[in-house]
Amino acid sequence: MRTQGRPVLSPAYGQPSVHEADVVRGLFPGTPTALSAASLTPLDRLHGIVTPNGLVFERHHAGVPDIPPERHRLLVHGLVQRPLLFTMDDLMRLPAVSRFHFLECSGNTQLEWKTPAETVQRSHGLLSCCEWTGVPLSTVLDEVGVERGAAWSLAEGADAAAMTRSIPLESALEDALLVYAQNGEMLRPEQGYPLRLLLPGFEGNANIKWLHRIKLAREPFMTREETSKYTDLMPDGTARQFTFVMETKSVIVRPSGGHKVRGPGIHEIFGFAWSGRGRIRRVEVSINGGRTWESARLDEPVLPKCLTAFRMAWRWDGAPLVVQSRAFDDTGYAQPSRDELIAVRGANSYYHYNAIHGWKIAFDGSVTHARA
Amino acid sequence: MRTQGRPVLSPAYGQPSVHEADVVRGLFPGTPTALSAASLTPLDRLHGIVTPNGLVFERHHAGVPDIPPERHRLLVHGLVQRPLLFTMDDLMRLPAVSRFHFLECSGNTQLEWKTPAETVQRSHGLLSCCEWTGVPLSTVLDEVGVERGAAWSLAEGADAAAMTRSIPLESALEDALLVYAQNGEMLRPEQGYPLRLLLPGFEGNANIKWLHRIKLAREPFMTREETSKYTDLMPDGTARQFTFVMETKSVIVRPSGGHKVRGPGIHEIFGFAWSGRGRIRRVEVSINGGRTWESARLDEPVLPKCLTAFRMAWRWDGAPLVVQSRAFDDTGYAQPSRDELIAVRGANSYYHYNAIHGWKIAFDGSVTHARA
Repeated sequence: MRTQGRPVLSPAYGQPSVHEADVVRGLFPGTPTALSAASLTPLDRLHGIVTPNGLVFERHHAGVPDIPPERHRLLVHGLVQRPLLFTMDDLMRLPAVSRFHFLECSGNTQLEWKTPAETVQRSHGLLSCCEWTGVPLSTVLDEVGVERGAAWSLAEGADAAAMTRSIPLESALEDALLVYAQNGEMLRPEQGYPLRLLLPGFEGNANIKWLHRIKLAREPFMTREETSKYTDLMPDGTARQFTFVMETKSVIVRPSGGHKVRGPGIHEIFGFAWSGRGRIRRVEVSINGGRTWESARLDEPVLPKCLTAFRMAWRWDGAPLVVQSRAFDDTGYAQPSRDELIAVRGANSYYHYNAIHGWKIAFDGSVTHARA
Repeated sequence: MRTQGRPVLSPAYGQPSVHEADVVRGLFPGTPTALSAASLTPLDRLHGIVTPNGLVFERHHAGVPDIPPERHRLLVHGLVQRPLLFTMDDLMRLPAVSRFHFLECSGNTQLEWKTPAETVQRSHGLLSCCEWTGVPLSTVLDEVGVERGAAWSLAEGADAAAMTRSIPLESALEDALLVYAQNGEMLRPEQGYPLRLLLPGFEGNANIKWLHRIKLAREPFMTREETSKYTDLMPDGTARQFTFVMETKSVIVRPSGGHKVRGPGIHEIFGFAWSGRGRIRRVEVSINGGRTWESARLDEPVLPKCLTAFRMAWRWDGAPLVVQSRAFDDTGYAQPSRDELIAVRGANSYYHYNAIHGWKIAFDGSVTHARA
């Protein structure tokens, strides 16, 4: 207190404390190239439902394009009455809305099908939550006029991968947004600057970034990303296709793998729950490997298709134990056990793993995966 | 689309687009030193109720101290049964909560008492809103045991100014938080890293940053910041003291001073409303200088003591006009006109200006202060 601190820097965009330099995104393990790659949100270092923009997970198929916003265009065509080309100025003068929604890669928790990941950043880090701002897609579709018979929309990105997905028109009209801002500021480059599609509750991949084209048609377009990829191989050898909705899921992020619980006494169990179908109604926590469950406290507000933070005060007596969480949403859906999930889906899947997850705490407080 | 984009950088903390480099905090005009200074949030570049941490306004009285969290302590003493010294680890294992609240300097909009500011960043930029995470102060006061007769608490910062304010114990017990995180990550240095007081709805100055001491007593401590500063000079020459609550207020941030409306046609009026007493119930917008008012659309969720975003689609016919907003909160309080405010408060005040504010749009679309 005897010396002045650093002065106000201005003009400036503030940065985290130097003492938090280890709170960063990390590359998805085993990625052969950083062009088609993913980075993971450090969930165990988060404290609320907002993921700060600097820590929002990434998944790119051909790197992050640099798009000057004044040169960006959105073409809306196909089964429409008036094909239109929109500039960013055109879009940003339309009535907008801000809403909080999670975003999760359908490949999140993919390692859990086989070998458990050591940390929650590795197992669940393809998950983030932001306040998104944009124009309802329905507003723009009203402008172009949807032709009778249109049932699907193609969304295409302006990246070198031309990421392309077919979206049911019904979903697009329900709550899809043409998003240009996240957490109050313009989109980050790696989140699709200057424009992305947001389909609340849908798998991340369908939320096309650097969005430059929407085409309406009668049938889905059967792009690579919904035929050879992003389908779910079932036990009978068939594949589920167009499994857009991210089902109810939860995970304890503190304590979690790699942590060390600092001795017996009071601690807080902290985690996130979410459902692509609506609001989280209840989260239960077990501290005895699933024998008994207790309702956790939920931070307000509890919003639809949004992360919900849950907390439970917990007095550790120093004996080894397993902590787990399970979530229930307002449609009545309950997060399944691993056995229940595999009974339906088999063990050959890659996407859409949402089973109950647990951490084992040892005598010395060290935390590892419950199945490790 | 013919070249790959930039690869995923890892480990990394993401940054805004290079095309948004002008979206920064700016120094409060006329500040003689950058040590006791303020920087302003660029409200007209915001898109939702979350202010990204890099743009949250600052106000320091002796610069930003660098405090390693492992060395930080919070002393709670005075009229208590068991004075205690807490480490950050001690505090962070206690049951926490995350809540969205605005933070506003009581000196925000101070220029409006005399000469209107040209931009909304200059007039209203000492205002931000975050999701804050911390331990209820009541939990820590339960631990130390409040002695009978204690009615006030002193909060002191560990900066070189030793910023010190007296807080009514009743408020401290109601909803005050010992905050260590904002928008999901640990506090930024300029927001009090590693620990600050958060008093939802109270003037910013009372939300002591770098908090290292709380002392309970029977009477307020009459510190410099509540005697010579942060009082309101009334028309009769007396001063109002301990005017903690930030009253209901609203402002249109788009369009706002310095903008140019891009010609006749559809535009969106976008702004923020907030009340230190509770929830915003309604925001009205006038596009004819106050002759008629229409209810604006509010983004969900509408939270207590939190920014509320309001929006109104508006078709400009190209004629000059004045746009204004006025807010109503759930206690029935209505944001006053400038005349109503001055009738009660006089014109010699510096803090707590919350009158209805307007912008004038000229034939060419240029936007200036309605009183300019």
